[in-house]
Amino acid sequence: MDTHNKPVYEDRYLGGTPHHIQLARQLYQQVANLPLICPHGHVAPEVFADPDYTFGTPVDLFIIPDHYVFRMLYSQGIPLDALGIPRRDGVPVEGDHRKIWQLFADHFYLFHGTPSGVWIRDELRAVFGVEEKLTGESAPRIYDRVAERLTDPAYRPRALFERFNIEVLATTDAATSPLTQHQAIRDSGWAGRVLPTFRPDALFTLDAPGWPDELQALADASGTHIASYPAFIDAIQNRRAFFKSMGATATDHGVPSAATEPLADLEAEALFQRALSGGLRADDTPRFISHMLVMMAQMSVDDGLVMQIHPGSFRNHNPYLLEHFGRDMGMDIPVQMEYTRSLKPLLDRLGNDPRLTLILFTLDETTYGRELAPLAGVYPALRLGPPWWFFDSLNGIQRYFDSVIETAGIYNTVGFNDDTRAFMSIPARHDLWRRASASWLAGLVLKQVVDLDDAEAMIAELAYGLAKRTYQLDDGDKQP
Amino acid sequence: MDTHNKPVYEDRYLGGTPHHIQLARQLYQQVANLPLICPHGHVAPEVFADPDYTFGTPVDLFIIPDHYVFRMLYSQGIPLDALGIPRRDGVPVEGDHRKIWQLFADHFYLFHGTPSGVWIRDELRAVFGVEEKLTGESAPRIYDRVAERLTDPAYRPRALFERFNIEVLATTDAATSPLTQHQAIRDSGWAGRVLPTFRPDALFTLDAPGWPDELQALADASGTHIASYPAFIDAIQNRRAFFKSMGATATDHGVPSAATEPLADLEAEALFQRALSGGLRADDTPRFISHMLVMMAQMSVDDGLVMQIHPGSFRNHNPYLLEHFGRDMGMDIPVQMEYTRSLKPLLDRLGNDPRLTLILFTLDETTYGRELAPLAGVYPALRLGPPWWFFDSLNGIQRYFDSVIETAGIYNTVGFNDDTRAFMSIPARHDLWRRASASWLAGLVLKQVVDLDDAEAMIAELAYGLAKRTYQLDDGDKQP
Amino acid sequence: MDTHNKPVYEDRYLGGTPHHIQLARQLYQQVANLPLICPHGHVAPEVFADPDYTFGTPVDLFIIPDHYVFRMLYSQGIPLDALGIPRRDGVPVEGDHRKIWQLFADHFYLFHGTPSGVWIRDELRAVFGVEEKLTGESAPRIYDRVAERLTDPAYRPRALFERFNIEVLATTDAATSPLTQHQAIRDSGWAGRVLPTFRPDALFTLDAPGWPDELQALADASGTHIASYPAFIDAIQNRRAFFKSMGATATDHGVPSAATEPLADLEAEALFQRALSGGLRADDTPRFISHMLVMMAQMSVDDGLVMQIHPGSFRNHNPYLLEHFGRDMGMDIPVQMEYTRSLKPLLDRLGNDPRLTLILFTLDETTYGRELAPLAGVYPALRLGPPWWFFDSLNGIQRYFDSVIETAGIYNTVGFNDDTRAFMSIPARHDLWRRASASWLAGLVLKQVVDLDDAEAMIAELAYGLAKRTYQLDDGDKQP
Repeated sequence: MDTHNKPVYEDRYLGGTPHHIQLARQLYQQVANLPLICPHGHVAPEVFADPDYTFGTPVDLFIIPDHYVFRMLYSQGIPLDALGIPRRDGVPVEGDHRKIWQLFADHFYLFHGTPSGVWIRDELRAVFGVEEKLTGESAPRIYDRVAERLTDPAYRPRALFERFNIEVLATTDAATSPLTQHQAIRDSGWAGRVLPTFRPDALFTLDAPGWPDELQALADASGTHIASYPAFIDAIQNRRAFFKSMGATATDHGVPSAATEPLADLEAEALFQRALSGGLRADDTPRFISHMLVMMAQMSVDDGLVMQIHPGSFRNHNPYLLEHFGRDMGMDIPVQMEYTRSLKPLLDRLGNDPRLTLILFTLDETTYGRELAPLAGVYPALRLGPPWWFFDSLNGIQRYFDSVIETAGIYNTVGFNDDTRAFMSIPARHDLWRRASASWLAGLVLKQVVDLDDAEAMIAELAYGLAKRTYQLDDGDKQP
Repeated sequence: MDTHNKPVYEDRYLGGTPHHIQLARQLYQQVANLPLICPHGHVAPEVFADPDYTFGTPVDLFIIPDHYVFRMLYSQGIPLDALGIPRRDGVPVEGDHRKIWQLFADHFYLFHGTPSGVWIRDELRAVFGVEEKLTGESAPRIYDRVAERLTDPAYRPRALFERFNIEVLATTDAATSPLTQHQAIRDSGWAGRVLPTFRPDALFTLDAPGWPDELQALADASGTHIASYPAFIDAIQNRRAFFKSMGATATDHGVPSAATEPLADLEAEALFQRALSGGLRADDTPRFISHMLVMMAQMSVDDGLVMQIHPGSFRNHNPYLLEHFGRDMGMDIPVQMEYTRSLKPLLDRLGNDPRLTLILFTLDETTYGRELAPLAGVYPALRLGPPWWFFDSLNGIQRYFDSVIETAGIYNTVGFNDDTRAFMSIPARHDLWRRASASWLAGLVLKQVVDLDDAEAMIAELAYGLAKRTYQLDDGDKQP
Repeated sequence: MDTHNKPVYEDRYLGGTPHHIQLARQLYQQVANLPLICPHGHVAPEVFADPDYTFGTPVDLFIIPDHYVFRMLYSQGIPLDALGIPRRDGVPVEGDHRKIWQLFADHFYLFHGTPSGVWIRDELRAVFGVEEKLTGESAPRIYDRVAERLTDPAYRPRALFERFNIEVLATTDAATSPLTQHQAIRDSGWAGRVLPTFRPDALFTLDAPGWPDELQALADASGTHIASYPAFIDAIQNRRAFFKSMGATATDHGVPSAATEPLADLEAEALFQRALSGGLRADDTPRFISHMLVMMAQMSVDDGLVMQIHPGSFRNHNPYLLEHFGRDMGMDIPVQMEYTRSLKPLLDRLGNDPRLTLILFTLDETTYGRELAPLAGVYPALRLGPPWWFFDSLNGIQRYFDSVIETAGIYNTVGFNDDTRAFMSIPARHDLWRRASASWLAGLVLKQVVDLDDAEAMIAELAYGLAKRTYQLDDGDKQP
């Protein structure tokens, strides 16, 4: 069986039997070329603000910014220094990018069977035209090819945005950000639609060393003095309005748990004053975060911003890497999650309100069928986000569909988010989702759960419609 | 590929490849026409007590009583009023059933990929002869067809009971019920076998507002005065004997957790007195329920009633719907469960006693392989119930088999329960279980885990034998 | 479809469709005859120390020592006495092994769909040449055949060790063991490589009734007086050195949870003194076990022994069986596990140290994707053990690969452990693993996740390379 030739490669991820593949291909082809809706991600807006932005070397593109990649190499004993990851203490790290690329390619077998392995393969192929396999032997040739392309104006971000057929891309931005880059994008007259997303986590994490600075930044950004809880709330509303004026349609909240217990106003004020005076109690921060999620939901009812909650990641699990290399080093590890009881206070208040759209994510797959699908399958305000992070993968997507849809249906889900800082990988990620969706739907057709007409309607929704509608991205014209 | 013609439809749920389907079909055909054993469900006995009972309109049949259906519509913003669900405050709701049916049909795409979607399709087809697809366009025609049939005497419950080939059907009845309807069924001379099941939950929920009334009902039903814990126990034993005399073979217990910690007699008495005097402590109710499960198991050893525990549903999660529409509005959400430690006190006493049959259910699929299969795979008193509620579905059944059987074998499971209040959906549910069983077994044969002879024996057990034997339904003649 | 003839049997566990089977077979054949690496198991070293050791009757071989087997029979109401399991009180149990074998064979259908069912079938076939199916009817013939073979010198353990092509086999031995049997194996001049593994659990379980005896045994074995915590630590280091001198490459730790919280020296000393004086506090034992895991990891950094943690089994769940029949009666039931927070203290100290190899096991499959794969996928010191106990099965292996590899890759796993006391089942277990691996890899190739070259490299690692390297079994010549 020759599994290497191009026609076979083109059926990747579509399923395991000829019958299944044939039907999945038919469904996939229907959506393969639809524009990409990217409603949640972490690409830096700078990338688009500067029309001449370039991605640097292949190592700058594929390795240094991608914690999915270097954490795997690190797990097998390769020091981060050797991969060119900058140290916080300024001690020089490996600077020879050809050498780093060779080290990476020599160990690329570690990625066999992983999403990074296939994204990188697909990206090299589709974006850079590299058809040979990445190995230690081919490494120098592939480096040269990619490096050469990266100097080509056709590989500037704006050109790629258009080539990738991205209809809209949302970044994630600190609540205190002046959105200067977004303003620059607008001012530039470039037609690419890049929107901010309001992320206020740092303002709610009262016990973080940087919180006073965050609060000052909020005060500066909103032009107010913040000496009380009501002033804090006002400033946040002010920022939400500003983000909305800049095109934002959503907020995002990365929180330790899904707890949503509101505080009485007096309690919130007392707690806020303890934060201001440096006298926080042990549970003040989680209680405040929990409370603020309810406030955010209430504000979303008022201003219409879609709300996203990404809970349950134990951030910076490794103090050694945090100290020497900083945050986002692949050291965020999921913990067990609970939603049924945790979300109840918020849902008691707002769960029946169709003006609210609250999108839930999880890193604990056990909650898919047990809690999230039953909740999203009945509360008008709830929707379920796509498989997140480690589970944005071929098996992860299959498990998600298998666990969620029977209870929630597809219309209580929101399609796909690429959730990436790796701009160049966006087409590969959406393509994998579309193929995996086609494969899952082909299975439903072959099992006679749905017919082909149903499946055709469903794949269009999963690939495009649900994300666009749920995130209110369908009326580009309403943009100020 | 034409997936719409009848021959293909007839292979529904059997698997995805021609080879697999062929073998699964062979296994399915062996059990397709076996009588239905329905040992656990929620059909109202009234339906059979009145020989002229009719189901009303298609909306009365398919929508208003089915929380699986209206909760999905509600999740997408359709108010329950618009679906004709009666309000507790008596404010009128939509009464035009053709309009409601149209609304339902317009949104039937929401059910694509869900069990309700396939049950309804299969039910319309098999029971009502509706072969066209339910859409907004076909809605009026299908309404007419179904409405017309529902006036036909052949669509009365007793006639359908016989047409469905139901061998025995157990209802679920409050422990205090006089079982008047069951008596009427017996007195009528109709040959259909409909049995009660003893469900005493309301008597154990000491902190429910209605508990004093329940207790009074128990006193009335058992003809005793209940001023002490021993009198309470006596009255319950009395009711169990009455249910048994009316044909019951089982009890059922819907409880918040699987805790089974017995109390000393003095402790139980003191707690019971606090309940009588209105001085309950915070944890008295859960402690009493936990204790009473052990008492129920002991009584089952004595009187031979099979015991069922359905734990882990957070009931009436949505206070707004509870207040305005009442219980069973699709707002019961699972929570994480624990069995290994929780059941130990009960098992320490009775787990090795083969006179006890204790059937466990779960809404937390993570407990299948981790706790329930290892427990059921060693304790003589334990059996594992079929996938429950959200997991009575094609994927749910597959996951159940895949997670449970390797450890527990099929003989520590109890076949299928339809667990439904929707009488008309019973054949569709059993049929899906039988097809899913055939598909799973075909997979075992193709992987050479079992041979075809084994698979043929196993499907007969899964479809019929296990339920009949475990629930002691094999000797209809012993009935009084 | 004739599924009984030999050619089809030879494709067992390879997958369900002709295409898939063909590719899986190709991969399987590549590793089918590789030597067996058995780095973790429970075969008694006596078996090899005595060159004339025989296994007794078929019942002595297949039933009495195998709690997988008799717990299933017990679950269906067959008393352990009737199976010849010896009672602790010396009351005689069934002694007619032909009668026991008949009882077993009459109930062999209980094992359909279970790993024991296929291991026994495959073992009878491959080791004893029994091609007919085990049933009540064939039972006497098969008994005779097996019994006859067991008297043949070719069925002595050493001969089978060679016939099974076992390259190395590690036993599990109490830390206080003098390793007399291992010394006898070495002294015998037999070439079979059988190594001890250091298991100190009993020394850490301070509240066990036998702890004082264990401590005395440690003192005797290490030739020291142990009146203090430092002396205890010294004695353990002494034993580790002795085990290492006898060829051990690993330690093993069966613990209730994955907690790894180190104590300060003074705290450890105070706690140890309480143990010596019989004044233990309620949480002293779990705190000491948790602390000692960190100490073990530190010692592993120093002496290079690979460390294994097997947590999360609730041992001896059934007090009746414990009292009357003893430990290891199939009554160990898994509980929910947590690793992300529990392992952090140990990882904070040693997780980045490549000199440590810490292999984690779990009986809670929910932790595969949520915690273990993310941890093993980034910490250089961590590796993930194969599916354990109930999950060493066809579905268990498939779920393991599907949940783990996308995040951790295969190189952060350690291949296969048979983990068995049933020596005769070792080839069947490794064969099932190799077939299941081939089937999983064939799926990846058919879905174009990896190509055939990748899959060929991966199956060699899964079947042989990973276990050999991770457990440092690659340099037999270094043995003293």
